[in-house]
Amino acid sequence: MSITITAFERSPDGGKGLARDTRVRWALEEAGLPYEVRLVSHRAMKEPAHLRLQPFGQIPTYEEGDLVLFESGSIVFHIAERHGLFPADANARARAITWMFAAINTVELPILELVTAKFIEGDKPWSAERMPLIADRIRGRLRQLAACLGDAEWLDGAFSAGDLLMVSVLLRLRPSGILDEFPTLAAYVARGEARPAYKRAFAAQLAVNAA
Amino acid sequence: MSITITAFERSPDGGKGLARDTRVRWALEEAGLPYEVRLVSHRAMKEPAHLRLQPFGQIPTYEEGDLVLFESGSIVFHIAERHGLFPADANARARAITWMFAAINTVELPILELVTAKFIEGDKPWSAERMPLIADRIRGRLRQLAACLGDAEWLDGAFSAGDLLMVSVLLRLRPSGILDEFPTLAAYVARGEARPAYKRAFAAQLAVNAA
Repeated sequence: MSITITAFERSPDGGKGLARDTRVRWALEEAGLPYEVRLVSHRAMKEPAHLRLQPFGQIPTYEEGDLVLFESGSIVFHIAERHGLFPADANARARAITWMFAAINTVELPILELVTAKFIEGDKPWSAERMPLIADRIRGRLRQLAACLGDAEWLDGAFSAGDLLMVSVLLRLRPSGILDEFPTLAAYVARGEARPAYKRAFAAQLAVNAA
Repeated sequence: MSITITAFERSPDGGKGLARDTRVRWALEEAGLPYEVRLVSHRAMKEPAHLRLQPFGQIPTYEEGDLVLFESGSIVFHIAERHGLFPADANARARAITWMFAAINTVELPILELVTAKFIEGDKPWSAERMPLIADRIRGRLRQLAACLGDAEWLDGAFSAGDLLMVSVLLRLRPSGILDEFPTLAAYVARGEARPAYKRAFAAQLAVNAA
């Protein structure tokens, strides 16, 4: 059954791979699944045809036969479950799922606050004074994550969908410089980026945005 | 195999059911699973013994034999998967999981921004001016969610773990008054609260905090 995802016609990051279709492309590449991409403009994203697929007017979506999914975390989960991006052992699988939720909720939350502060409230008088507060909240989380990772290669044994999401979330921090304050996490992210599947996903989204 | 979760010795909300152990208690009650609770003080939460279970120093955790999980979303998923809180149909199950991620990421995110603005940055000079901006971002999401729910009872057919998390996330909004601006969503949340399993979960956490 053919798979179609949606992505920005023109990504706000200009192709740095930070839009959420990259996570989904990465999972599809890890799974070795071919897929098609339908590009959506910012305007079309808020129109009824797209809202029927994605009630919050965002990308990516995932269509496979009569199945329609949204939320990159859920799409990555769906691909992971069917195509071996989880460990076979039941307890290890449950822990990998825990890392998916930790990435998407506990770690991504303060990171997205920084994005909001910069791009949505960047013109407000409090912006300059707030940024360091948010950065410190992020550092608090990263310190804990780094302690947990230690000098392991991945968060819990072999590479899993948990690492895929965690690396994707941490990547958003690179422009801020905060990621590089934590060398073991920066190295962890670099290991993710070095995977051939990530490279193919990154190149595919870049090709759209460089066009 | 016996199940033990952790919860606040003294919840910051004084027993309003907004701490994240309530979601897990609710799922356990829906599944009809007995469980034990280990209460953790705010200080103990940041100590090595707890950090070994929960690297971010939060509650709840979930222990079942040699399995240790954290992240309420992941724990609810684990319970849901094994004890029938997902639809049997594979596509419907994938959509229920989508709603879990939508609750935890897309909807909870601006709601937690409001919590941060109130409790962590409440003393800052920008606090009063920022609150309405955050409230508007929440309203934007709720408007989309309400359009999607329409006058259905639950988000996608029968009650699922997706509704359990979405109701839990929306409940955090009640003190702000924003939830009541969306009568169909307020009614949806009330339907969740009316479930016997929710009532038992709420009563159990209240008993701890009223003690």
